[in-house]
Amino acid sequence: MDFLTILGLAAATLTTSAFLPQMLKTWQSKSAKDVSYTMLITFIIGIFLWLLYGIFRQDLAIILANFITLIFNMIILWLKIRYG
Amino acid sequence: MDFLTILGLAAATLTTSAFLPQMLKTWQSKSAKDVSYTMLITFIIGIFLWLLYGIFRQDLAIILANFITLIFNMIILWLKIRYG
Repeated sequence: MDFLTILGLAAATLTTSAFLPQMLKTWQSKSAKDVSYTMLITFIIGIFLWLLYGIFRQDLAIILANFITLIFNMIILWLKIRYG
Repeated sequence: MDFLTILGLAAATLTTSAFLPQMLKTWQSKSAKDVSYTMLITFIIGIFLWLLYGIFRQDLAIILANFITLIFNMIILWLKIRYG
């Protein structure tokens, strides 16, 4: 595996896993009032477009990273709807 | 411009601009206690790696999108440090 692939995978792992602590924090505190609805919805639509982009480009790294990020952010949105 | 380029640009525009409403919300409410520090720091390091990836690949779309996202998230982190 070359340097660029490792750099891309490291970047994808970090920007994807970043939403895990946000999800856990919201789950535990049962509060997401400081998290913006507009951010969540805009981000989810954007990630969905990245996922389509990855599917059309047949790029597994883009597909996987954005699929997981999409799931995490939909859970955060659901927690925000539930807890406010 | 082909369909895939337009799809990628639309995706990049949405995932970048998503952080603008979060920045404004935090600025106005002066509160970011529901925003996770671990998320912000992990995300910022990840976006920085994406920026390096774009620079090495000489991909202007990746460079621009991640540079702007990096600035927005560093401002959100600064607001979080300032307001808690």
